[in-house]
Amino acid sequence: MKKILVIFSGGLDSTTLLYKLMSDGHLVAAISFDYGQRHNKELEYAGRTCAQLDVEHTVVNLPGVFSGSALTGDVDVPLRDYSVETMKKTVVPNRNMTMISVAISYAISKNYDAVAYGAHAGDHEVYPDCRPAFFEAIRRVAGLCDWTPVEVLAPFIDMSKRDIAQLSRALGVDPDSTWSCYQGGEEPCGQCGACRSRQEALK
Amino acid sequence: MKKILVIFSGGLDSTTLLYKLMSDGHLVAAISFDYGQRHNKELEYAGRTCAQLDVEHTVVNLPGVFSGSALTGDVDVPLRDYSVETMKKTVVPNRNMTMISVAISYAISKNYDAVAYGAHAGDHEVYPDCRPAFFEAIRRVAGLCDWTPVEVLAPFIDMSKRDIAQLSRALGVDPDSTWSCYQGGEEPCGQCGACRSRQEALK
Repeated sequence: MKKILVIFSGGLDSTTLLYKLMSDGHLVAAISFDYGQRHNKELEYAGRTCAQLDVEHTVVNLPGVFSGSALTGDVDVPLRDYSVETMKKTVVPNRNMTMISVAISYAISKNYDAVAYGAHAGDHEVYPDCRPAFFEAIRRVAGLCDWTPVEVLAPFIDMSKRDIAQLSRALGVDPDSTWSCYQGGEEPCGQCGACRSRQEALK
Repeated sequence: MKKILVIFSGGLDSTTLLYKLMSDGHLVAAISFDYGQRHNKELEYAGRTCAQLDVEHTVVNLPGVFSGSALTGDVDVPLRDYSVETMKKTVVPNRNMTMISVAISYAISKNYDAVAYGAHAGDHEVYPDCRPAFFEAIRRVAGLCDWTPVEVLAPFIDMSKRDIAQLSRALGVDPDSTWSCYQGGEEPCGQCGACRSRQEALK
């Protein structure tokens, strides 16, 4: 049993991660980030899931830290074009390293053993900070950045989104309790990359 | 000539770093952090130095990100005891990784080539995130975290505080334009670790 702080967006992947780590018997808490994302609606979903699971939930504000991405409103969210080059417009510069760093700070202060995030194999081509090489490098940093090392976990790093969707069913995650759409409108748009990969995985 | 973003506290080390990189012919900008430090007075010094040197200066707010350190007010700043074990109370959990991560995000968005910070050899024993092993590990992450890699520089990593003080004189840095004291009172307290190491170096 470890004390694990989960980087939790409220989407399908990190919700499944939360369920999985709890089901594996770990003590989990969740940390979410409000960084001015278009779809900060995801934070409401994150909060409801944590309340339902009785998981301690912290939301950290990172105002003005990220820019230059479709997800922070600097360019339009690409729709109906799911090519790697187009999807790269949705990369938020250095988001994972920053979130993991803040989560490690928090983990050290609160005596958590590890920080977990939901990177998976379907992200490797588009998101540089979801690749195994990045994960290995950040694990090494996390072992050196404090006198008390913190572990970084990414249990889904070799799994496909479809694998995660299957696992979510097995664990009893209600997909409607999670939010993926990059546009953050009233209803999921069904046309952005996040809607598309979610639909395909849940099929 | 590189475009370099300097992590700039307004203290003697990072002020000397700013002067040095400018004197080496680089285009520099500065990024400072308000993380609730007792001595956020240092930010006024940072701002004045940047205005004087005509250097672009960004202050990023990281409210509530760090806790558990004498510098964030959770315990008293140790005075008159400069042992390694006592000085470790002034470690801010994972401060450098977080600052470097945010600086990299900013550097990517604004097309900077590198991020520099003022870690030096005098810090290695007390501050884990100033050690050469951490520096090497974070350099590696910085090369993997985005499709456009950002370099991390720490030109003082093998220099002593005294070397930096000598360099600061050669570069024309006015020590009174910098702020080091951890207590952040009206005048430097002269008794904290930062005051002590500064006095010894400038002697």
